Amino acid sequence: MKTTRRIPAATISRLPLYLRELEELARTGEDVVSSRELSELSQFTSEQIRKDLAYFGAFGRRGIGYSVRHLEASIRQILGISEQPELALVGAGRLGTALLRYLSRRHAGLTVGPVFDSDANKAMGSVEGYTVLPASAITKELQRRQVRLAAITVPAPAAEAVFSALVAGGVRAVLNFAPVKLRHPDVFVHNLDLATELQALAYYGQLREDKADEGTHA
Amino acid sequence: MKTTRRIPAATISRLPLYLRELEELARTGEDVVSSRELSELSQFTSEQIRKDLAYFGAFGRRGIGYSVRHLEASIRQILGISEQPELALVGAGRLGTALLRYLSRRHAGLTVGPVFDSDANKAMGSVEGYTVLPASAITKELQRRQVRLAAITVPAPAAEAVFSALVAGGVRAVLNFAPVKLRHPDVFVHNLDLATELQALAYYGQLREDKADEGTHA
Repeated sequence: MKTTRRIPAATISRLPLYLRELEELARTGEDVVSSRELSELSQFTSEQIRKDLAYFGAFGRRGIGYSVRHLEASIRQILGISEQPELALVGAGRLGTALLRYLSRRHAGLTVGPVFDSDANKAMGSVEGYTVLPASAITKELQRRQVRLAAITVPAPAAEAVFSALVAGGVRAVLNFAPVKLRHPDVFVHNLDLATELQALAYYGQLREDKADEGTHA
Repeated sequence: MKTTRRIPAATISRLPLYLRELEELARTGEDVVSSRELSELSQFTSEQIRKDLAYFGAFGRRGIGYSVRHLEASIRQILGISEQPELALVGAGRLGTALLRYLSRRHAGLTVGPVFDSDANKAMGSVEGYTVLPASAITKELQRRQVRLAAITVPAPAAEAVFSALVAGGVRAVLNFAPVKLRHPDVFVHNLDLATELQALAYYGQLREDKADEGTHA
């Protein structure tokens, strides 16, 4: 499973979607899945699935398909979620709380790690059963617990400072919901601004209304 | 500005990010921005920006740059947010409430439209100042108000039924946060499962820890 080829980000982002279908198949007792079935379930082409998985080794058997359990375990290992890494959350507001609740209910392979908030009234209190630490403790806590993953759900003006503290604490990958671009040469940042997602959505709402072809701007 | 070329989804998803920078430039009183400055601000290459905008017409002037106000207004028009279209929200839980609050604070070009929840205790109550209607009213309300955009923030088991009701009501584009794939030939659906986003993030956290090259799985 060792490879030095560059893995496209789009491939990485599809792996959790394959995993979701495999988990569902495992729950319903399926042992084997054909690439055609996996294609129908995941909405990606068989060719795409084969290409994505080929980056990491040979999984399926021609004419038989994939072992559900084996492929499920392999994808978990590739993604690095087999050992349930900790995710730090900064910002215990509505969105942060929604994320906490979601993570603790759905077994996504991530453990809720330290939770931080800069609001003195929230800090040292508890949200969804997790103790909220003051934002000033971010760097020290991340270093102490060796947390590599974080989600930022603070308002825009607070995001830069929070990010710097996370970087100083050794964070490696950040999902940033604040509407500011965060960047650092040594850290993978996925900027996910819900407002811009909705603005892109508006484009398609308008398109269909105009009876234009899909993907065509008229 | 009329074109029959297909516009890549990636182009559409970058337009709100350009818009965000243009809004910020307008706030600080800038009249003109060079494609190089816009590139630095948005983190996309000048070439990418020029290519994206070229789908919709000629905006910049060689050697001068873009008019901030004109490009801002043009992108709003392209995205269909100049007229502040209504967005229906189904699911007034934590995530839905976070989204409502966010939309009402940030002037993203979308108006919060009808809000629905299947919980009888929430329906007919109010969340963030918006009246919550019962989920049974989705189709009728969407038809009556001609709402074309919706966000789904309900738990997975409820998502399919909610989606069917939205489609029957004439929805054209849906942002779905529920961890199930929704699809319909006449509706643009963006499935955005926060758990799978975090799982993809885990991959990069692990990578950096192993001192592997960016984008390389070791």
